[in-house]
Amino acid sequence: MIQKEEINQTLRKYDKKKVTIATIGSHSALQILKGAKDEGFKTIVISRKDQAIVYDQFNVGDEKIVIDDYKDILDEKIQEKLIDKNVILIPHGSFVEYVGAKNIEDKIKIPMFGNRLVLKWESNRDKQRDWLIKAGIKMPKKFSSPEEIDRLVMVKFPGAKGGKGYFLAKNKKEFNAKMKKHERKGEEYSIQEYVIGTLMYPHYFHSPLESRTEMLSMDIRYESNIDGLTRIPSAIVSGYKVDPSYVVTGNIPIVARESLLPQVLEMGMNVVETSKKLFPLGLVGPFCIESVCTKDLEITVFEISARIVAGTNLYINGSPYSQILYKEPMSTGRRIAREIKSALKRGRIEDIVY
Amino acid sequence: MIQKEEINQTLRKYDKKKVTIATIGSHSALQILKGAKDEGFKTIVISRKDQAIVYDQFNVGDEKIVIDDYKDILDEKIQEKLIDKNVILIPHGSFVEYVGAKNIEDKIKIPMFGNRLVLKWESNRDKQRDWLIKAGIKMPKKFSSPEEIDRLVMVKFPGAKGGKGYFLAKNKKEFNAKMKKHERKGEEYSIQEYVIGTLMYPHYFHSPLESRTEMLSMDIRYESNIDGLTRIPSAIVSGYKVDPSYVVTGNIPIVARESLLPQVLEMGMNVVETSKKLFPLGLVGPFCIESVCTKDLEITVFEISARIVAGTNLYINGSPYSQILYKEPMSTGRRIAREIKSALKRGRIEDIVY
Amino acid sequence: MIQKEEINQTLRKYDKKKVTIATIGSHSALQILKGAKDEGFKTIVISRKDQAIVYDQFNVGDEKIVIDDYKDILDEKIQEKLIDKNVILIPHGSFVEYVGAKNIEDKIKIPMFGNRLVLKWESNRDKQRDWLIKAGIKMPKKFSSPEEIDRLVMVKFPGAKGGKGYFLAKNKKEFNAKMKKHERKGEEYSIQEYVIGTLMYPHYFHSPLESRTEMLSMDIRYESNIDGLTRIPSAIVSGYKVDPSYVVTGNIPIVARESLLPQVLEMGMNVVETSKKLFPLGLVGPFCIESVCTKDLEITVFEISARIVAGTNLYINGSPYSQILYKEPMSTGRRIAREIKSALKRGRIEDIVY
Repeated sequence: MIQKEEINQTLRKYDKKKVTIATIGSHSALQILKGAKDEGFKTIVISRKDQAIVYDQFNVGDEKIVIDDYKDILDEKIQEKLIDKNVILIPHGSFVEYVGAKNIEDKIKIPMFGNRLVLKWESNRDKQRDWLIKAGIKMPKKFSSPEEIDRLVMVKFPGAKGGKGYFLAKNKKEFNAKMKKHERKGEEYSIQEYVIGTLMYPHYFHSPLESRTEMLSMDIRYESNIDGLTRIPSAIVSGYKVDPSYVVTGNIPIVARESLLPQVLEMGMNVVETSKKLFPLGLVGPFCIESVCTKDLEITVFEISARIVAGTNLYINGSPYSQILYKEPMSTGRRIAREIKSALKRGRIEDIVY
Repeated sequence: MIQKEEINQTLRKYDKKKVTIATIGSHSALQILKGAKDEGFKTIVISRKDQAIVYDQFNVGDEKIVIDDYKDILDEKIQEKLIDKNVILIPHGSFVEYVGAKNIEDKIKIPMFGNRLVLKWESNRDKQRDWLIKAGIKMPKKFSSPEEIDRLVMVKFPGAKGGKGYFLAKNKKEFNAKMKKHERKGEEYSIQEYVIGTLMYPHYFHSPLESRTEMLSMDIRYESNIDGLTRIPSAIVSGYKVDPSYVVTGNIPIVARESLLPQVLEMGMNVVETSKKLFPLGLVGPFCIESVCTKDLEITVFEISARIVAGTNLYINGSPYSQILYKEPMSTGRRIAREIKSALKRGRIEDIVY
Repeated sequence: MIQKEEINQTLRKYDKKKVTIATIGSHSALQILKGAKDEGFKTIVISRKDQAIVYDQFNVGDEKIVIDDYKDILDEKIQEKLIDKNVILIPHGSFVEYVGAKNIEDKIKIPMFGNRLVLKWESNRDKQRDWLIKAGIKMPKKFSSPEEIDRLVMVKFPGAKGGKGYFLAKNKKEFNAKMKKHERKGEEYSIQEYVIGTLMYPHYFHSPLESRTEMLSMDIRYESNIDGLTRIPSAIVSGYKVDPSYVVTGNIPIVARESLLPQVLEMGMNVVETSKKLFPLGLVGPFCIESVCTKDLEITVFEISARIVAGTNLYINGSPYSQILYKEPMSTGRRIAREIKSALKRGRIEDIVY
């Protein structure tokens, strides 16, 4: 684990007037880079050859670094080069997936926005559950073995691979059949009650500088093949069985019933407060609480993402919610840059970077 | 019934330069308060203790009044206090639901934006149907008893409780079984043909000052559990029966095929024209015509909401439609404030407040 | 076929300072007219009597021409009148549908934005397939006769009637039953594999002036009755069979997973490059590649629309994507006007009009 003090030392050497915002070219990089630019930062996008076209075509990133593999960012020379340019790195879901939580904790010497201590709590399902339960959040029942399954459940596998391989089952028999079919033998898995209701993904931002947890926007995910399967009428599907899968392919904007917002806001605030008790500094910056709202208007949470989520890409020009908080279009990407700018001005950059 | 003249007298005593816009903290209050602020008004939010967090967190409402129960707004002292502050109250769905149509008609002495005479026509399904039919609008077949059910129907119960308890039935037997299951014995209900097509909720605004009915935006509702149920494939659902419910939990933005807009605009205009024949002043301000579009591109209407609907919350920063009409972001909430501002300027506030 | 040189001659006679943008009142006319106005053009809307209300109500079109039938635009006098006003006509889906591709090619003497040579390639399914395959795009398997059907297929009929009459079938028997039921005997049809996944309709704009293919926005279609059918649980639908239909009634906004954008952008660029080899000038201006994304994140294309599509109506005030490219709200309609303005300034109007 790279120590906070090591990052602080690096930050102290930074030319605070030339801080550059960099990110990996995928996931929410367009938004992060545009947001940084809107706040006046110089930007760098580090992308794999096959993805560079996106940042060329949309003309973002003052500087473009092309690498062969995302793990190349662990390379000492690349890291030194970025540190020389006073880079603050913005992590996102693909970054964590491609580079690996352990590698980030142990090998990324570049100052990163947010708190890398959260990775331990986010990447382990048991620790994550512990955190959320401590925050007073209602979660779906967890089944520790297939024998216990007594209702509809979702079976999930580790890693943020965008829902790949998840499946539904009603009982042990179905569970076993699908494990076999999916060739999941011997793999780790988690079995969670499948709560029926409307999915809701509120996007939060916790600002240590303002001591405030903001709710900036909300989305639902657009998943393949499930969101295509629903459009095949059951009469036609019968005798034509296709297993549903839950691979995220995009996002759709929503707003929530206003009387749900107290629950939504309190969840966000409680998660932040609890995090401070669990690890130093606690949760910093953007996060998303993946939840489902039942017909009794009760919100149940099945996961937390302790970083910017791709659903925020819908709101590059602001959301209905962020428009209330800010008088200018405020995406989550721009909000991150705004927090960094504000911290630099107040001499508090160490409070939001690790 | 509080007489129009009584409200007019109150209005005459108002300091027209200090008019304050107030609303109940729920439903579309964020939008209403932001819109009022954008138009330069002082604002007050009156909220129940458990909902106050929303208006604190989003930092809206120049003044905040916290009450124990929404019916407390009927209290003489609170009303006098608000009248002393030159308040115009903006009603919305939750306001009508929490306070009750009868209470609003008989006890709210505070000048309210819009025409409270519409409440009688909106809250009674038969009067509402009468109004819409007179306006030349196509409605689903109505069944006066379960015996008559000969197709798929939706059974609804009175009150704007966001779709709670509604159910589908194909025949008398299913109707009886579900009434029993839902413990709805002895309650009032309405049985409506369930027209299959795409739901569409256009948001209108009738301006008496401009003599114009505007179509400002459009949404679809995001309902629990039905919009979650659709994502469980039929093969899995079989033997795992869950009754659908239709509780509104949020909203999703849409635009309509442009060739449907003549129908949509004419519906709005006809509803307003007809209202003028049914009750003095007629419909004033925002309303929504809940409709479904069949595969033959015919729009059928199953309900009208004669006030701001929560679907407009999607468009706090303007909608594709409102952007054509206005050169600045125009939500329905802001449109209300704009009408009030305009009426104050022209000395016509009595034409839009009752 | 009206020759390019004839159009060029007309253009040469135009008063370049008084160019007027005109379109047919339907489909995306609101957007086109607003966009043209935003770029400083005078505008004309030509609409059928029953649709004129839309353009009156939204107050677009500096001049309004009302005609009885959209084919009246073929009338020499109307065309001359428009040419006298230095009109550049913006074609859209309804224009092609109402007037007919052949009529447009042979009889429209008014300079049209884009390249009318594309109509031949777009209106013929075989030529269209040829074009897309040459561009390296993956398409669903095509079945040349009902006998060959060995999986779920979608059966489509010619003409851009917004999905009317399309149906699903799993085998020859179902195909025959539905052809009979839909009274489609003797009609032309195409049988395409029904690829299961999330539908995605990216909206592109190819600018010959900037030599750039932009991706401006993305939508999904909201179709009747299929998107209503999905909300009827299978348990209720059983014994209550309704055939799905796919008539477009509106659009819903989406963004795509960022790691899909290389595929999306390359498809757009390849389609443009290939078009240049197939016909002079190639594809110019807006187009949409109707596609589906499988659970393996592979994009399959089932159609191309080589003109502005109605899904862009969602983004009259800009999209998340167009906001990255432009610092002002850039709809596809406005992008068209911007290209015309730019071409006029550079003396290159002949490169983008035919």
